Amino acid sequence: MTNIAVLGFGTVGGGVVELIDANQDAIRKRLPEGLYVKYILDIRKFPDSPYGGRVVDDINRILEDPEVSVICETMGGIEPAFSFTKSALEHGISVCTSNKELVAARGTQLMEIARAHGASYLFEASVGGGIPILRPLRDSLAQEEITGITGILNGTTNYILTKMDQEDASFDDVLKDAQAKGYAERNPEADIEGKDACRKIAILSSIVSGKSVRYEDIPCEGISEITKADHAFAKLAGCRIRLLGTYRKSGEAVFARIAPYLVPEDHPLYSVSGVFNGILIHGNMVDDVMFYGQGAGRYPTASAVVSDVMTLAAADGKCVSTEWSEEKLTLTNAEREKNTFFVRLPDSRLDAAKQLFGDTIVKTLGSLGGETGLILGPMTEEVFGTVIQALPEAAYLRML
Amino acid sequence: MTNIAVLGFGTVGGGVVELIDANQDAIRKRLPEGLYVKYILDIRKFPDSPYGGRVVDDINRILEDPEVSVICETMGGIEPAFSFTKSALEHGISVCTSNKELVAARGTQLMEIARAHGASYLFEASVGGGIPILRPLRDSLAQEEITGITGILNGTTNYILTKMDQEDASFDDVLKDAQAKGYAERNPEADIEGKDACRKIAILSSIVSGKSVRYEDIPCEGISEITKADHAFAKLAGCRIRLLGTYRKSGEAVFARIAPYLVPEDHPLYSVSGVFNGILIHGNMVDDVMFYGQGAGRYPTASAVVSDVMTLAAADGKCVSTEWSEEKLTLTNAEREKNTFFVRLPDSRLDAAKQLFGDTIVKTLGSLGGETGLILGPMTEEVFGTVIQALPEAAYLRML
Repeated sequence: MTNIAVLGFGTVGGGVVELIDANQDAIRKRLPEGLYVKYILDIRKFPDSPYGGRVVDDINRILEDPEVSVICETMGGIEPAFSFTKSALEHGISVCTSNKELVAARGTQLMEIARAHGASYLFEASVGGGIPILRPLRDSLAQEEITGITGILNGTTNYILTKMDQEDASFDDVLKDAQAKGYAERNPEADIEGKDACRKIAILSSIVSGKSVRYEDIPCEGISEITKADHAFAKLAGCRIRLLGTYRKSGEAVFARIAPYLVPEDHPLYSVSGVFNGILIHGNMVDDVMFYGQGAGRYPTASAVVSDVMTLAAADGKCVSTEWSEEKLTLTNAEREKNTFFVRLPDSRLDAAKQLFGDTIVKTLGSLGGETGLILGPMTEEVFGTVIQALPEAAYLRML
Repeated sequence: MTNIAVLGFGTVGGGVVELIDANQDAIRKRLPEGLYVKYILDIRKFPDSPYGGRVVDDINRILEDPEVSVICETMGGIEPAFSFTKSALEHGISVCTSNKELVAARGTQLMEIARAHGASYLFEASVGGGIPILRPLRDSLAQEEITGITGILNGTTNYILTKMDQEDASFDDVLKDAQAKGYAERNPEADIEGKDACRKIAILSSIVSGKSVRYEDIPCEGISEITKADHAFAKLAGCRIRLLGTYRKSGEAVFARIAPYLVPEDHPLYSVSGVFNGILIHGNMVDDVMFYGQGAGRYPTASAVVSDVMTLAAADGKCVSTEWSEEKLTLTNAEREKNTFFVRLPDSRLDAAKQLFGDTIVKTLGSLGGETGLILGPMTEEVFGTVIQALPEAAYLRML
């Protein structure tokens, strides 16, 4: 029997405890001795829970019990999650987590501490919820030169964009609906401004590059400025709007970005709708591979946490995997990235736009509600940014 | 340096040799000592190849060299691939392969031999080409009760169905085009009659159930009877036709099947087009996850083979993984499986169909070219089979 402890008896932590109970048969096929949740750390009491007797409020009870092989940190936030994780690793106890905020902010440091103490710090659940992505990237695609990642990494924003599109609804109305349904937080900023997706593309970029990518260095735009008009033009162009996290390596240049993009119909991310996530990886030999599933939710996220527990349990808690080095990855100046753009502007400004963009206009989408939509061929962000300044009435989005 | 040998210098074997050369830097990030192809077994000579000097025609040269840690079998077919693999495993040398025919026919036996000699038999490339699927199933989803697999598992048939749909073309015309482009074999039977897909769903079902699923036990229909009319009605129903391999576990009942299905627009497999494959896995906790990528081709398949080589090299060639037991899985009588059906029949027979199917008709698709399309709610194969006998003019397909 491998004894584990779960820190935080909230949505994900509760899911971990329930999953280990419900799926013990499946687990024993792989780990014949089975898994047992010996402790749950929470400052609250749960007298009505069947697991209430295992709840403790002192981390030292867990750290000082030599029977605990693996700790799951499902508290979220930086503190006290960081201190507890650090202490566990310093005790030589491996930790797995769903805490993307902590992984993005202090993951490099925690991996160093893990290595120094012969332990592991794993975080499959921090990106893509239940989707197996970090381990396949590390294990199944280790023979590839990964040159691109394009991901729908946040379910809340994907739900909002999908609803706006399907119901011709405004951002504000759909956000309220999403909050009522529990798909968006009362303070939705981390989701809608792209910060959550940004942490995830930083983690993915770090794994792929082997160096530390700081999420603060990644240009990040959210979806709060997206309008019904954007969706109407996207449809006209045979596209859907999706908030994407991108990583591109081309020779020595490396770009990463969070922004809403127009995704064309023949792209595999086009049909990733609602709360689902999809992550497309481009390798130099395997070409495109995509991983799709529920990017959040109690049981999918718990499933990813338990997959890490099982990896650690199978390796007696000592599976040390170097994810990335402390060395910082310097991203190329984002102004040098080439993109294609969709622009919409008042019909009256079409002639001015034609003069400014000239041959770079590859398609005119026609007029909708007094505005004309244009699609521009690839140009650097710098060139586009300079020209678009002469058209202050215009709105724009990038295209895949 | 881990020395390996490649059996068969054809499409996939050549890809393995080239990939290991081209991506040595990526490989060394994970395996600092690197990989080296010491031998290539082929009865042909390759005087113009930069690798020609490594080609040998005697398997014993390889088996008797103690420096060879891992063998890649990329010959295809049953013999001599089976004998060579068996000999290698009996020498304690682990083997990885892209040979789905051999895995489906003799995989259980080869895994037993591998276990008995402390070696491994791995076959990531045998299902889904370059898509990481077997290892994620085994490692990342080991905590799940897998209750369903739905896969587009054959690129040739998916290319043909996609082309028929997009170009309103007949099966025969598209098959000729696919043969001219090299997407279909001159003798296309294994692909178009579903046999290749059947081997793959047998492998997936064996991994998921832990028992040996014989592909001969799986009901298998191909796509050679699909007509333009089927595609026209599919469009009317908001669907696309795809050849699917399915595995369903419901209580004690276990079903597997290969057949063309109508896939609705909101299903993640709907947009898997052309030579791409997609495999949807349903777990009791993680819900749906899908894996997508190129199901065949020189470099994608080679990439999957090399991922197995790296797993074995990292474990000194000894990573023993029990994939499934020799015990045979008895599939439930396929007549008891419930499905929904699409039926098309001459307009003149609509009244007869209404009498026969009654309330089970959930939708009438209208008339096209003198035929009417109907969608029927779920019923067992047995009931459907009995009723449809009274309508010999009708054609039908299953629906997801």
